[in-house]
Amino acid sequence: MQHPDVTLETIRAARERIAGRTRRTPVFENETLNELAGAQLYFKCENFQAGGAFKARGATNAVFALSAGELRAGVVTHSSGNHGAALARAARLRGVRARIVMPDNSSRAKLEAVRGFGGEVLLCEPTLAAREALAAQLVADSGAAFVHPYDDPRVIAGQGTIGLELLEEVPELDWLLLPVGGGGLASGVAVAAKAMRPTIRVVAVEPIGADDAQRSFSSGVLSPARQPATIADGLRGALSARTFDLIRRHVDAIVTVSDEAIVQAMRTLWQHLKIIVETSAAVPYAAVQSHQLEVSGARVGIILTGGNVDLDELPW
Amino acid sequence: MQHPDVTLETIRAARERIAGRTRRTPVFENETLNELAGAQLYFKCENFQAGGAFKARGATNAVFALSAGELRAGVVTHSSGNHGAALARAARLRGVRARIVMPDNSSRAKLEAVRGFGGEVLLCEPTLAAREALAAQLVADSGAAFVHPYDDPRVIAGQGTIGLELLEEVPELDWLLLPVGGGGLASGVAVAAKAMRPTIRVVAVEPIGADDAQRSFSSGVLSPARQPATIADGLRGALSARTFDLIRRHVDAIVTVSDEAIVQAMRTLWQHLKIIVETSAAVPYAAVQSHQLEVSGARVGIILTGGNVDLDELPW
Repeated sequence: MQHPDVTLETIRAARERIAGRTRRTPVFENETLNELAGAQLYFKCENFQAGGAFKARGATNAVFALSAGELRAGVVTHSSGNHGAALARAARLRGVRARIVMPDNSSRAKLEAVRGFGGEVLLCEPTLAAREALAAQLVADSGAAFVHPYDDPRVIAGQGTIGLELLEEVPELDWLLLPVGGGGLASGVAVAAKAMRPTIRVVAVEPIGADDAQRSFSSGVLSPARQPATIADGLRGALSARTFDLIRRHVDAIVTVSDEAIVQAMRTLWQHLKIIVETSAAVPYAAVQSHQLEVSGARVGIILTGGNVDLDELPW
Repeated sequence: MQHPDVTLETIRAARERIAGRTRRTPVFENETLNELAGAQLYFKCENFQAGGAFKARGATNAVFALSAGELRAGVVTHSSGNHGAALARAARLRGVRARIVMPDNSSRAKLEAVRGFGGEVLLCEPTLAAREALAAQLVADSGAAFVHPYDDPRVIAGQGTIGLELLEEVPELDWLLLPVGGGGLASGVAVAAKAMRPTIRVVAVEPIGADDAQRSFSSGVLSPARQPATIADGLRGALSARTFDLIRRHVDAIVTVSDEAIVQAMRTLWQHLKIIVETSAAVPYAAVQSHQLEVSGARVGIILTGGNVDLDELPW
């Protein structure tokens, strides 16, 4: 089992590589939400990232770290949506072909996002096994470079740049809350945050219906993924050995929230921040709003991971 | 007929008065929307203003320009919603009572916003005559200070600070597009913009179903308001003599858009900017998207006036 290091240095290198190719996103504060929480909340708005989600960071870092030779047949990935769009966008910036394997129950908005960046969509059954099999076949047949949505140190380092930016802008955070699905963002951001501020408490939040990370974390043994059942479609992935290892070393706790709490949190964020965030992005704030975490009086960083929503199918 | 001047100087004074009591809002750009328009669009995001709409500027300027003696019985206004919430908020900051006359068909979100800032809501029939009569009665009975939603030079100067901020941030705009209802924002922003950049073309955009400003502007005679019929509930007010005079002197053109174009524009802005804007706020962009204006190749400022939306009643 191979664990190439993800460190503050590889994250700083990722930042140099993606600068000008992704956006430095703003940090929002809101009086009403602070009053509701009894805390100072700092929302890092990756819904404003290129392509509408943080995934642009990891995908762009990976594509621009590959050599021209490695990219001669383009790139391939499987994705529930946002990573696919991000990889298509990065490939277009680099001038290479992108083929994206997506489950056939993906939202229209996410399919359109991939195609909008020139990515070729290949639909498969909505299981991890089907996704992996089709992607592996494409790689074997064409020699394309595979860029995993999270089990890749270059992707993880790219996502870690969110933590770098947030801690530079708000250095004295007490807490940092982030969602965990496959663990690419959680592990990368945790590495950056703990390196920059060792006293920070990093908490990953997960939907109850996709709680493999929580089970793995509390048992100390990587648990197999069950069939995930949650409205937070971006968090249905399961930890890999790599992300599990990084999370054990750098994350302080994992808590879970219900789908009901997620929808309520999403609605509250829309109402008060006046921004569009998707279900998966509302997960960390759901832990605050539903009192899974006691953060009163503290300075709390919260990562809002994306805003790719099908506006015809709102969950309330 | 009295026309106390609204000038760049009174707008600068308003900016000093409201600083720290309102927000300096960000200017957003978006690659996709630029490509769709073939132009450089700069969106001034007043949906992020305190209370979710630009109205905080004018109301705060008016309340803090009044003396303690004038405020002894508090303030009164009539409003379809955003000005009411803004006045309630400004009154609370100043520590005085606010009574807000609102039509009984106001959205729940707008009623809650007023009450959330401690304002007292008095409902009336949804006609201008009913609103004015009840507000006048409250003023006569109590001696409260009346702060009109737009027919007041202090309110107009407050709204003009939007133009001041936008032109400071993006000085070389070719066009400036803004919505017009009662004309408070349109006249204040036009005064600021033309003083700072005489070559700028200022275009006000109005729903076809509430086109009194367009009819007045093209005939040169202040037209009486018809019964307005538009989804853009913030733009149902009619010009006053004061705002009509300022608009004639400082606005270059008024164009109209259909409700269908407004809803389409609102949806496009949500989808790509990932922000919540209300129907009225989508009106200027609707003129670009529906090709009522030819702006290709130009630098275009667009004011997004607010984001107070009833999330249970989206118009698509």
